[in-house]
Amino acid sequence: MDLQIILEEIYKEVQPFISHGKVADYIPKLAAVPLEKFGMAIQTLDGDLFTIGDAVENFSIQSISKAYTLTLALQFIGEDRLWKRVGREPSGNPFNSLVQLEYENGIPRNPFINAGALVLVDIILSNSKNPSQTLLDYVRQRSDNPGIDFDAEVAASEKKTGFRNSALANFLKSFGNLENNVDSVLDAYFHQCSLSMNCIDLAKSFMMLANHGLSPWSGKQVLTESQAKRINSLMLTCGTYDAVGDFAYRVGLPGKSGVGGGIAAFVPGKLSVCVWSPGLNSYGNSLAGTLALELLTTKTGMSIF
Amino acid sequence: MDLQIILEEIYKEVQPFISHGKVADYIPKLAAVPLEKFGMAIQTLDGDLFTIGDAVENFSIQSISKAYTLTLALQFIGEDRLWKRVGREPSGNPFNSLVQLEYENGIPRNPFINAGALVLVDIILSNSKNPSQTLLDYVRQRSDNPGIDFDAEVAASEKKTGFRNSALANFLKSFGNLENNVDSVLDAYFHQCSLSMNCIDLAKSFMMLANHGLSPWSGKQVLTESQAKRINSLMLTCGTYDAVGDFAYRVGLPGKSGVGGGIAAFVPGKLSVCVWSPGLNSYGNSLAGTLALELLTTKTGMSIF
Amino acid sequence: MDLQIILEEIYKEVQPFISHGKVADYIPKLAAVPLEKFGMAIQTLDGDLFTIGDAVENFSIQSISKAYTLTLALQFIGEDRLWKRVGREPSGNPFNSLVQLEYENGIPRNPFINAGALVLVDIILSNSKNPSQTLLDYVRQRSDNPGIDFDAEVAASEKKTGFRNSALANFLKSFGNLENNVDSVLDAYFHQCSLSMNCIDLAKSFMMLANHGLSPWSGKQVLTESQAKRINSLMLTCGTYDAVGDFAYRVGLPGKSGVGGGIAAFVPGKLSVCVWSPGLNSYGNSLAGTLALELLTTKTGMSIF
Amino acid sequence: MDLQIILEEIYKEVQPFISHGKVADYIPKLAAVPLEKFGMAIQTLDGDLFTIGDAVENFSIQSISKAYTLTLALQFIGEDRLWKRVGREPSGNPFNSLVQLEYENGIPRNPFINAGALVLVDIILSNSKNPSQTLLDYVRQRSDNPGIDFDAEVAASEKKTGFRNSALANFLKSFGNLENNVDSVLDAYFHQCSLSMNCIDLAKSFMMLANHGLSPWSGKQVLTESQAKRINSLMLTCGTYDAVGDFAYRVGLPGKSGVGGGIAAFVPGKLSVCVWSPGLNSYGNSLAGTLALELLTTKTGMSIF
Repeated sequence: MDLQIILEEIYKEVQPFISHGKVADYIPKLAAVPLEKFGMAIQTLDGDLFTIGDAVENFSIQSISKAYTLTLALQFIGEDRLWKRVGREPSGNPFNSLVQLEYENGIPRNPFINAGALVLVDIILSNSKNPSQTLLDYVRQRSDNPGIDFDAEVAASEKKTGFRNSALANFLKSFGNLENNVDSVLDAYFHQCSLSMNCIDLAKSFMMLANHGLSPWSGKQVLTESQAKRINSLMLTCGTYDAVGDFAYRVGLPGKSGVGGGIAAFVPGKLSVCVWSPGLNSYGNSLAGTLALELLTTKTGMSIF
Repeated sequence: MDLQIILEEIYKEVQPFISHGKVADYIPKLAAVPLEKFGMAIQTLDGDLFTIGDAVENFSIQSISKAYTLTLALQFIGEDRLWKRVGREPSGNPFNSLVQLEYENGIPRNPFINAGALVLVDIILSNSKNPSQTLLDYVRQRSDNPGIDFDAEVAASEKKTGFRNSALANFLKSFGNLENNVDSVLDAYFHQCSLSMNCIDLAKSFMMLANHGLSPWSGKQVLTESQAKRINSLMLTCGTYDAVGDFAYRVGLPGKSGVGGGIAAFVPGKLSVCVWSPGLNSYGNSLAGTLALELLTTKTGMSIF
Repeated sequence: MDLQIILEEIYKEVQPFISHGKVADYIPKLAAVPLEKFGMAIQTLDGDLFTIGDAVENFSIQSISKAYTLTLALQFIGEDRLWKRVGREPSGNPFNSLVQLEYENGIPRNPFINAGALVLVDIILSNSKNPSQTLLDYVRQRSDNPGIDFDAEVAASEKKTGFRNSALANFLKSFGNLENNVDSVLDAYFHQCSLSMNCIDLAKSFMMLANHGLSPWSGKQVLTESQAKRINSLMLTCGTYDAVGDFAYRVGLPGKSGVGGGIAAFVPGKLSVCVWSPGLNSYGNSLAGTLALELLTTKTGMSIF
Repeated sequence: MDLQIILEEIYKEVQPFISHGKVADYIPKLAAVPLEKFGMAIQTLDGDLFTIGDAVENFSIQSISKAYTLTLALQFIGEDRLWKRVGREPSGNPFNSLVQLEYENGIPRNPFINAGALVLVDIILSNSKNPSQTLLDYVRQRSDNPGIDFDAEVAASEKKTGFRNSALANFLKSFGNLENNVDSVLDAYFHQCSLSMNCIDLAKSFMMLANHGLSPWSGKQVLTESQAKRINSLMLTCGTYDAVGDFAYRVGLPGKSGVGGGIAAFVPGKLSVCVWSPGLNSYGNSLAGTLALELLTTKTGMSIF
């Protein structure tokens, strides 16, 4: 099985679908990304890297960052305390809904909906002197790339239009599920979403989860094997907004998507992969990206099922 | 029918129930109000005033103020524009719920839920150079009492704990249903809720609605007869949180309640009445106050039905 | 004020709007009713009857019948027991929704949504040897017309297509809020909805509620004055599906509508009125009928507010 | 790794938790099952069978049967037609909720909630002359046990108390998502739930899914490898009521539970397992059974993640 050939096949097969997606347009810099961009990178545990298309072009990783903050929050306060403040069930509702939060008294359904991610940020703020630097350091180590940084323009735009996230944060605060002040939490959250990375960075960063908690680049056991498996399960059941069933059905891998058009996924024990195509489907996941991952698991037979 | 004797009967009959209520405790100054306070004032169209108990003691009118801002907003932009931004159906949900707002795309169900009241404030902000003074002037004229003022301590407390209202305002902003910035709207809203008035002030202020739009004190036709009737209908179908059916069933009058324990109501063409008892029932309406109004309509036969 | 002239004015003014409505089409006999039908009848407490258009043509009264069964159920078991099994708050949701019933553990929000009406039927079944005859006798007496009857064809069609009502009845049964078996309750309910009456019948039948519980035709005090007022309040807050706020705002009278296009309403102490126009608005209320009632209260100034 | 020793360890470790569960009591025969029962069976692809406790005692498999009817429905009408009538997303709501069905116009969220299972039954009824025999034949072949049968007493009890399922079926019918009559669908559904099997039967029957669609006993390729993987993904994202996230997090395997206290699960390519302990947790899954599976994956390291 030659993964480079498979990437080339996928690249061809997704082309007709790239124009079917719709680029996120709620902030100018996302809206300006050309719809036809497509990149993909595969990093194997054996140490091989395969890429195609725009795999070295940076994009806004947006919600993919929630996988990083989940790991950090888990390291800071441990499972017992973490799961008192956020649930781990799929939401069954659009990703930024306030409804479920109200019915469940301010406990977000899972760490990957926006409300849950705000709680993660709050945990990091309570446990780190310089939260933004802590996150940057973490991501740079996981990706083996010290050049990764926030995109200040994107962060500023997020803040300017982020009324819904501000509503969520105030709502969480009203339920007593934020320790820090609302503005600090939002500021850190908008920065986290603005992380600018490319497919290779992302594929490399998720090797830690594909490799049972051991980061190949730093040689550090970031999570225990059991913790890594549990985070992986959460990515499968909650990582792709309101399309987790569909994603598991078609792709069959744990993964995390973002409205910038990126999706990171991995086959535990084998490889991690990142695909980027900015056109989104109706669920907010990359349309051609989801298709590319479906083709990858079909062609390689590498589903976890 | 001697209304003074009826007030005295009511005063006696409600005594055993006063302790059944629960004083609002989300801000210190409300929490500090003694549960046993009870006042009532009736103002007739014939010009008579009847009072009992603590009718001249000021209290925080809270949501009763929404009846004033509705009138002001209506005067500023007229019915057609107003009802594009807020509905006029009972909510069927607790008064500060975000759920309905989400399902109905940022259009609050009616002007008396918090979300609706924030839209009213936004309208006043867009149409007045000094919105707080505009509201004060309006209330002082309606009540024929130039001494009415905001309670700065209450307003400050509301702001400090108002995360849920902040969530609502940000949510409305995200749907494009606030023209002004969120902080200005919230500041004006928290001031409005802090209006400090007594039963006589309130009874007098609602004479305008009882009198088909004509304010007896200023002699001014504030609303047309048709507008007054329509506002009155909204008070009946939406004025008492999630207990409008129960209130109409037991009391049978249009009215508006606040968590400070006040309820203002009126019999169109006859009289207006305000009762104050700080202990609330599970719906957020004054428990003994609701009972007092039920006794009033039972004893006088003055229901609108 | 000449009510006959007012009826003639209304008749002319509603003509352009009659075609804007949509006839209920879920059963053949309703679908076959010509859209252009329009009738109206006013019965005053003074004993005068005014009519216009198709006021003597029978139509399917559908949900208007719920006002009758509410009175019967109240007579059978009294207020205390009745309000344990059904609420009295507006629903804030489409009229046949199952959602609220689930959140509120099988207690329908009010007697005028379908679930509430099924509970009323169940009460009548438990307290009458021949429930259908009991209802017929009641309606004939209230309307002073012994010829009123069910429409067997409509009842049969309702049964054939009544899966949603069957779902509701089974759901109520699962919560223990039906005493009788599901099929008996449904059968009685479908018959009740099939009552065939004309505008004069309906206007006369609601005189009892307009007249504080005293039926002018039988001279019988059917309800106490207090009970009548309370039923009237329920018609205002819950009688017109999900448009009670709008109906109170525009019409300003207690009323009950049906998908057959009829609306019965009344001015307590003065008159009762029935209008029929089969074209419905988006809420399931007669479109031209609602407009006709709005014109009536505007022209006569007879709102309860 | 000696699976027999692991089973013995698990058996000991779960003992203290067995009494924490609550036996389903909505029908007499389920209520009569002793709480202390516990059985477990593991069938490996290598052909080994390991058992402990009450592994050969029959119990009511209840909702586990939905995995069988899903396979049958898929064989009958194929993926394209099947997924037009039922979704494949986790429900995020209690398993017999009507709410989501209403918001999503009669399309059940997934095949494993009751509404979805009723649609599966409807498909089988439309495509089989003798649906109950078709299901029996299928289950007997998958389990390699011709003695498996329905429990007539359980089926009769389900029917007698099945008002909620009757509500669901009528609701589906009202949306046009049932082809057959409601009573036939319910009858077949209640029979399916009454299937009486033991841990060994169930473990053997799920080998087909663990073995990529190939049934070891019949040698028949029941599903394609791709279809099997997709069914497996559905079991992970939707198979354990409103606890799929928790189950994936703790157990990390695809599985299907029933209120009889059984849970069937499997490690694709390795083994299938069935555990039975009638005490349920608050989600309706076997409490000790879930714990036993968590211990199994912890001790063997056999998670799919």
